[in-house]
Parts: sequence; C-alpha cells; structure tokens
Amino acid sequence: MRAKLPHIAADILTRLRARGPRVHCITNAVAQHFTANTLLAAGAIPSMTLSPDEIGTFVARADALLINLGTFDDERRAATAAALEVAAERRIPWVLDPVFIDRSEARAIYAASLVAQNPDAIRLNAAEFTALAEAEPEDAALTRYALDTLAVVALTGTVDRITDGAQQVRIENGHPLMARVTAMGCAASALVAAFLAVESDAFKATASALLCFGVAGGLAGARAEGPGSFPAALLDALYALDKHTLAEKAHLT
Amino acid sequence: MRAKLPHIAADILTRLRARGPRVHCITNAVAQHFTANTLLAAGAIPSMTLSPDEIGTFVARADALLINLGTFDDERRAATAAALEVAAERRIPWVLDPVFIDRSEARAIYAASLVAQNPDAIRLNAAEFTALAEAEPEDAALTRYALDTLAVVALTGTVDRITDGAQQVRIENGHPLMARVTAMGCAASALVAAFLAVESDAFKATASALLCFGVAGGLAGARAEGPGSFPAALLDALYALDKHTLAEKAHLT
Amino acid sequence: MRAKLPHIAADILTRLRARGPRVHCITNAVAQHFTANTLLAAGAIPSMTLSPDEIGTFVARADALLINLGTFDDERRAATAAALEVAAERRIPWVLDPVFIDRSEARAIYAASLVAQNPDAIRLNAAEFTALAEAEPEDAALTRYALDTLAVVALTGTVDRITDGAQQVRIENGHPLMARVTAMGCAASALVAAFLAVESDAFKATASALLCFGVAGGLAGARAEGPGSFPAALLDALYALDKHTLAEKAHLT
Repeated sequence: MRAKLPHIAADILTRLRARGPRVHCITNAVAQHFTANTLLAAGAIPSMTLSPDEIGTFVARADALLINLGTFDDERRAATAAALEVAAERRIPWVLDPVFIDRSEARAIYAASLVAQNPDAIRLNAAEFTALAEAEPEDAALTRYALDTLAVVALTGTVDRITDGAQQVRIENGHPLMARVTAMGCAASALVAAFLAVESDAFKATASALLCFGVAGGLAGARAEGPGSFPAALLDALYALDKHTLAEKAHLT
Repeated sequence: MRAKLPHIAADILTRLRARGPRVHCITNAVAQHFTANTLLAAGAIPSMTLSPDEIGTFVARADALLINLGTFDDERRAATAAALEVAAERRIPWVLDPVFIDRSEARAIYAASLVAQNPDAIRLNAAEFTALAEAEPEDAALTRYALDTLAVVALTGTVDRITDGAQQVRIENGHPLMARVTAMGCAASALVAAFLAVESDAFKATASALLCFGVAGGLAGARAEGPGSFPAALLDALYALDKHTLAEKAHLT
Repeated sequence: MRAKLPHIAADILTRLRARGPRVHCITNAVAQHFTANTLLAAGAIPSMTLSPDEIGTFVARADALLINLGTFDDERRAATAAALEVAAERRIPWVLDPVFIDRSEARAIYAASLVAQNPDAIRLNAAEFTALAEAEPEDAALTRYALDTLAVVALTGTVDRITDGAQQVRIENGHPLMARVTAMGCAASALVAAFLAVESDAFKATASALLCFGVAGGLAGARAEGPGSFPAALLDALYALDKHTLAEKAHLT
C-alpha cells in the first residue's frame, strides 16, 4: 500500500476533478470560508447550509458529508441529526472531525454518540483521540479504535497516521506553518469527505486525501513567506497537484 | 450603451470612491468576510448586523442594501423582513442574490416572495434563474422577467448578461478561476449594491459593477498562481482599477 | 516609556511565543477567521466557542479573553455574561472592543454595562470613543475616561493613543490600507488580549501589542499590492517580527 499510495491518490484526485462531487459540510464558523475554498480548489462543490427546512434536501443530493464539531451550538446539533438520518438512509459516506473535544466534556460525550452512528472516517489530533478513545495515541490504540468503530482513524500531526485496523500508513509531509494557521485540520477533513465521494475504499480515500493535503502543505511551506501567505499557497498547490509531484514528494513510512 | 459602458463604469467608480457609501449586507456566513473586503476595496463601507434590535437603524443609515439567501435561517429571514420595510420607506436601493434556490424549494418560494418586494437588481446564475423565473435562461426569458419584475436582471457566468427589459449588455470578462473560489457571485452582488448607492439608473449601475468585477477578475486571473492567490489579486485589481484599464480590457458584446 | 517601548514589546512578544497562551474570543462573524490567524501568527492559541454548555470551561482554561461587539446577538450576549463571570472569578484579563456603538444605541448601552465590569483594556476608534465616553476624543478626555474606568484606553486610527490615565503613548505606525480591509481593529484587540495574557502591566501590554500590530501593518503596506494582498502580508510580518525591526520601525511621539 505504502508504495502505491501516491499513484492511488493521483487516480482518486483525477476522478474527483472529473466528477465534481457535492460535499455538504456542517462545520464551524471560523473554518467555513477556507473549507469551501479547499473543496473548490480540489474540484468538489461545497454546500454549508444548516437550516432545518432544507438540510435534508442538500444532504440527499450530496455525495459526501462532513460533520465538524468546532462550533458546538443547537442549530448545528439539530442539523447533524437530520443530516445523519439522510446519510444513513442513502448510504452517503461521512467524516467526523471532533474538534476540541479534549477541551469540553459536553463535546466529548456528543462526539461519542456520533461515532456510534458509523462515520466512514474520523480525523482528529492526538489530544482529541485521547479524549475520544480514552487511550494514549499509540499505534495499538488506533488499531483497536478503528476495529471497534469500523471507521478509518486518521490522527494528524507532524506525522499523520491512518488505519482501518488492518492496515496502517504514516505520512510525513505537511509543514510546521500548518500549526500556525486556523482551519487546516478542518479543511483536511473536508478533503477526506471529497475523496470518499469518489472512492468507496475508505482507507484508500482517507490516506489519499491526507497525502494530497500534506504534499500541498509542504509545497506551500516552501513558497510562503509566513503563515499569512501560507493558506493561499496551499490552495494553489492543491489545485495544481499532479501524479509526478505526488510521487516525488510523498514521504511515507 | 455598449460602447459607453467602460466610461460610465469609471465615472460611477470615481463617485463611489469619493462618497464612500454605506452598504448593509444580509449575507451568508461563508461570504461575509470576502464581501466586506470587496466593498472596502471598492471604496464602500460595509455593515453586516442581523440583530433585530438594530437592523432598522443600520439600514436607515445605509445607502444600499444586499439580501443574499446563501445562509437560510430564521435570524436572516427576520432581519430581511425588517430591512426591506425600512428600505421601502426610505427608498434605499437593494439587490437580491437568490443563492442556491435551484437546490431547495423552500428557498425558491422565499426568493419569489422577495422579488415581489421590488428589488432594483437581481443577480444570479443560470440554474438560479431557471428556478426563479421558471424558464430556460434565454435572452427572451431574461427580458420578460425584467419587464415582469421591474428589476434589472443580471445573469452571471462565463458571459454576464444584464437587462432591464429595454436594453441588454453582455460582458465577457472574468476568469475561469472565479468558479473555483467561493463567494465570488456574492461579492459581485454586493458590488452591484454599492454602485446602486451612487447611481440612480439601475441598469447602468448593475452593468458597471459587473464590468468592474469582471475586469478585476480577468486581471487577477492573469496574475494569480491558482485559486488560492486569486481572491487577493482580484481585490488588489479592483482597488487599482481606472478608466484606462476599464476601456482597454472591457469585452462587451 | 516611549524610548523603551520597542524593547518592552519585543520582550513581551518573546514570552508570548514561548508560552503560547490561550485567548478566548467572543467576536463577530466577519472577523473570526482573520482574528484566529492573527493570534496564531503571534504565537497564541485562539478559541471562539459561544455555546452556553462549554463557554465557562473554555474561559476558565484561557489566559485572556476578548469581548468584541461586532455581531450583536442574543447568543453572544449570553456567552459574554457567562464568560465575564468566570473571568472575574479567576482574574483572567480581558479586552473590550465596542465595535459600531456609534451606529446603534442598543450597542452603546450594552457597551457601557460591560465597561462597568472592569475590562483591563478598551480598544476603539474615535467615533466609538465619543459614543462610549460622551466626550470628544481629546487627550484630556481619554485620560479622564481611563481614570474613571480603571481601564487602559487605546484609541486607534492614523495615530494610536494609549493611556492608563497616568501615562500616554502615541504610535504613528500602521498603514492607510488598514482602513480598506475588514477586521483590522478586531484583530488588534485580540492581540492586546494575547499580550495581556503574558504581561500583567496592562498599559505596557496594550501599547506593545498595538506597536507590534502597527509595525507589522507598515511593513505589510510596503510589500502588498493593495488591500487584497495586505492581510496575508501583515500576518507574515507579525510572525517574523523581531526586536531589531521593532526598534528600527517604531514611530512613537
């Protein structure tokens, strides 16, 4: 898998650009703008409505769904309940991004209830993993959690580790500036949703999305003059990403 | 009209920069930031409050109003009702941007109720036009819809078509990257509102605003390295736009 | 003080980068994204939740708090009440940014009630000062208002004036483009909160934060090609700011 991942990622990205899947995002207020632009740069079509009158219609026509807990309000919880009902009915793949559950018990309890509704992938950082899985973020704990939940678990950080319980890949791309810009993790989760929209193997889709995001981040870090110019450089790189760059830059261990 | 439009647009832009009109925007959460920066780059002063305690005061002191349906929630619908009451009383020009009404019947019905309240201009894309006017987006249908509603109809896309029922202009500026960045149409609608604030001929104001936005977009597309760097380049170009550039770059048919 | 300020600012910035304090922001929808990125570029960790279920927990773990009135809704007023209770209990420093109180009486009355709850600093523009202090923004009025409220008063504009009633400093950095981009004042207020998190002398913290923001703004103005590229250039400059640049560029009167 490790050796083939750049090739797989390039293939999924090509399909994504050709099909332009719709990705509905229930996400936080800070991340909405950058998340929409990340999806558009990759070739997907974002929508972000939360309205109870229409969320069902939007999700029914979407090819994938993102649930991000960064803004934890009644409106988004109601939207999430309605969205997940439609997603389950229509087998629309979905990603959970349990933002800041390490900082708030109410969020952690809510996140656990969402995990029980079978996300295809969960993207989080180390502190969030510990809050969710009640375990240190060791490889064995990731494997166990993936097996328990039947979700692909993607723990991102300096090194990204992705596992479905049977296989694991480690991605050492990205750039330190990613920690100095808001909404990077949120946008990466949205990209996972976009890849799930065109690839039914959730492990391949998740690892490929994070590889593309990481390679784009590395290229952006080399060009940007700081955290201000970094996000635009990342989107430019993601838009231009091709199989040669993926093969050359992928750092998998 | 076609030959004179670059000159007219430059003249309105000069007045806009000199007067700094206030434009109140009821717009969607994803677009708020870029919309505010578009108005500021052009020389207008944005405000975006939705609060029932104060929306009346803000609109009463505004020189134009934008109603964008991209976030379709109770708060914005209440704000819209209050804002349109004040706008009608004080004859403040307003623009309707019926975002995504092709994706949600509830929005389409609501949009039709707003059209009945006499917007000065309606800016939308082809799918939104079809949902609103219940007709294919042919020139004849645009003309008829403008005559029926007494609004300037501005259908934007690869080619922008603007008509008030009596006259039509086609603008072939802009850039393909505009479809790969969120909130471009929303910001264009806000710019139409700003132009209406300083020009009472709604057809001239609408066509001029879209010409300025399109020329700025074309210049940005030539400079940007992708969709990430495009929005900043567009605002830089809009800020620097002058009559010579408008005359040289305008592509009207 | 004037001669030492660049040195003091560099010292506080060094501590900020080393400690990475948490700054909780109740701020407006338009400014959230740029505010988060400003805090991250400076070395602080932002959070922005408004949820009644968890705002207490977030504020209790924060090192400083920002209350910005730019979006004036029930949700934010409830969050503010809860946040200020925790801040008072735990003596967490906080900044008030009374956005647009000159445009809405309801906001002005609310802002006055917040001033009574002892902010460590108040950052505002001239029109907002007049609405809040019911006085023209003369130096004597600023001094009196600072003495009356026991807050550091920071009136920003072409020249920033900061006083705690006993001492005053004037900062003539910044750049005219700052008036052509949204959320600049909001982000400056957030930076004041971050400086208060690591420096207990509120006058030094406030003046230092505004000096850093102003110098970064001046550097950005020299590099940017317009208001579009300005915000990214400001964040790049803030991230790279060092004591030599501060000493060289500070324009204090």
